[in-house]
Amino acid sequence: MPAPNRIPATYAARLRSLRRRLDAAGADVLLVTYAPDQFYLTGAVLEDSVVLVTSRKVIVLTDSRFDEQVALQAPWADKALRDDSLPDAIIRTAADLRVRRIGLDEYMLVGQYDLLKAKAGKLRLKITRGLVASLRVAKNDAEVATIVKAIRVAEQAYLATAKTVKPGLREQEVAAELEYQMRLAGASGSAFEPIVATAARSSLPHARAGETRIRAGQPLLFDWGARVDGYCSDLTRVLTVGAKLPPKIAQIYPIVLEAQLAGIAAIRPGAKCRDVDGAARKIITDAGFGPQFGHGLGHGIGLDVHERPRLGAKSGDVLKPGMIVTVEPGIYLPGVGGVRIEDDVLVTKTSHRVLSRLPK
Amino acid sequence: MPAPNRIPATYAARLRSLRRRLDAAGADVLLVTYAPDQFYLTGAVLEDSVVLVTSRKVIVLTDSRFDEQVALQAPWADKALRDDSLPDAIIRTAADLRVRRIGLDEYMLVGQYDLLKAKAGKLRLKITRGLVASLRVAKNDAEVATIVKAIRVAEQAYLATAKTVKPGLREQEVAAELEYQMRLAGASGSAFEPIVATAARSSLPHARAGETRIRAGQPLLFDWGARVDGYCSDLTRVLTVGAKLPPKIAQIYPIVLEAQLAGIAAIRPGAKCRDVDGAARKIITDAGFGPQFGHGLGHGIGLDVHERPRLGAKSGDVLKPGMIVTVEPGIYLPGVGGVRIEDDVLVTKTSHRVLSRLPK
Repeated sequence: MPAPNRIPATYAARLRSLRRRLDAAGADVLLVTYAPDQFYLTGAVLEDSVVLVTSRKVIVLTDSRFDEQVALQAPWADKALRDDSLPDAIIRTAADLRVRRIGLDEYMLVGQYDLLKAKAGKLRLKITRGLVASLRVAKNDAEVATIVKAIRVAEQAYLATAKTVKPGLREQEVAAELEYQMRLAGASGSAFEPIVATAARSSLPHARAGETRIRAGQPLLFDWGARVDGYCSDLTRVLTVGAKLPPKIAQIYPIVLEAQLAGIAAIRPGAKCRDVDGAARKIITDAGFGPQFGHGLGHGIGLDVHERPRLGAKSGDVLKPGMIVTVEPGIYLPGVGGVRIEDDVLVTKTSHRVLSRLPK
Repeated sequence: MPAPNRIPATYAARLRSLRRRLDAAGADVLLVTYAPDQFYLTGAVLEDSVVLVTSRKVIVLTDSRFDEQVALQAPWADKALRDDSLPDAIIRTAADLRVRRIGLDEYMLVGQYDLLKAKAGKLRLKITRGLVASLRVAKNDAEVATIVKAIRVAEQAYLATAKTVKPGLREQEVAAELEYQMRLAGASGSAFEPIVATAARSSLPHARAGETRIRAGQPLLFDWGARVDGYCSDLTRVLTVGAKLPPKIAQIYPIVLEAQLAGIAAIRPGAKCRDVDGAARKIITDAGFGPQFGHGLGHGIGLDVHERPRLGAKSGDVLKPGMIVTVEPGIYLPGVGGVRIEDDVLVTKTSHRVLSRLPK
């Protein structure tokens, strides 16, 4: 058995990779202010805290609310408790560390940055970008397994919820059932506020569940995901309740499905994300609905529900093994309704694997 | 009936107040990047968007995903759609507006700020602080009514959930029931990830619901809130399941309750927030548990679950009519368990009104 304060191999590897980038970024220490990045590097679930990474140390700068929690979740890390403001505490800790060049992650709020700058004196502040995000983009086997679990939980909850859907229910009640089923199946909660949108509301790509009642013969769009051990799934399905769909919706559904399959087929290591987007978009554009597909084809998922890479017409990203991306084309007809179909796809060493299994 | 594109009086009043502060802040336009502030000023629920407020205009800078939604939620506002990066779109829009001095809210990410600065040319960027937050701090009657609704929904859900609690259930299952009941009662969801912590886990002030099973004769701590029309409630109760509490917990419960009542009694317009904190803290310190109450007494609630004012030993805030604050002292005994009791309290013109009604 390892000593309890020994750093687990997963975190050691991530910190090693990060440290290799630190010096190139011109920093002696990186202030990690983004909670998902803090969790990725230490396993600690924090708020209002900063993780400081130097070439030799990891210091969790937090307050008494998280004291016991850090001791449980990251006993190997150094801990500094503050009861002063975050900028004051950062300056103090930097002085203790005798560092000069302070790297800030891109997520620090500009208001905090402004306060920090006013107090920095001889310390040099350097805004960095993507130092942790670039590590997170390729998932290791344990992360893939966790995301697959988050997908299974979401699928199981959807199937249980779909059985309860009937005309007259409010979108909100369906969303309540969906979240309840996800938690029962083992999620810590929703990965994001689920979209349950009926009829014409399904043409709002970011509608939330509301008071509208479900009617027979109308599309019902679900866009939902589960969170398991910090990791997200993200799926979309459209179902119809009890009767036939309006002709316009029945017309666009197979186009969206064909576009989605074309997008998935284009996924392999080395593929340009804009080409994957283009493969799906071409089907929709050729069918005459280009202007009604106004968003990108998909995005990476992980500890964030939206992370790199971005699958879009202007994306400069390239697919690599270990990336997990959503593929979610849609056609939206204002006043009528919309169709979007979304699955989660792993980039493998030679090709891809569709991780989600719900029928379409 | 007002013309559909006429600005509703609520938003007009807020924008008037904000504009009075704009010039004093040295800005011709304010970039509002924080989604709750965007909702407060326009009624639109946005992501990845910026609301630009000048002395005469309000422009929602967003992308096609939110196009139809903005048309429904803020038809009176100008809308600018982007398919380029946010910094590029901001520079473009500022040029259209012929403004020079660009105020940034404190919530812009420093990475975005850095990109914006690189492209700003002759534009002057000015980091502002609290321009919208200072408006949000005092709630109008409609906001108070919405928060009361969010409290009632949370209370109703708690009472329904408490009936289902029994030994052997996992914390997670109890949290699932609680969220389900909140949605059924009319919430759009939880105001924050609910804490359901049993036994010794209740000594972690920010534990989340986990796999631990509930046992008889142990404390079960709930810290939860509902979100209704964007607004939050925030409550904490500790209950015991089936048998008597451990003696240590039974000892601290009345101390925490007395401290909470002393804190509530100190709430009135003009009171210093640090004195309100002090009134409660004195009870706990005198009982010998000062070091075991390591956080502030409370905080404002509204569109955010944590907003100004802050009730803490070092707070410089002063209470004003219309503020709604939590009062939530606690004593945490590592390895044994913790007690925290939390209610939501409105500062009235002459005194205060406790908005929450659950028995303690």
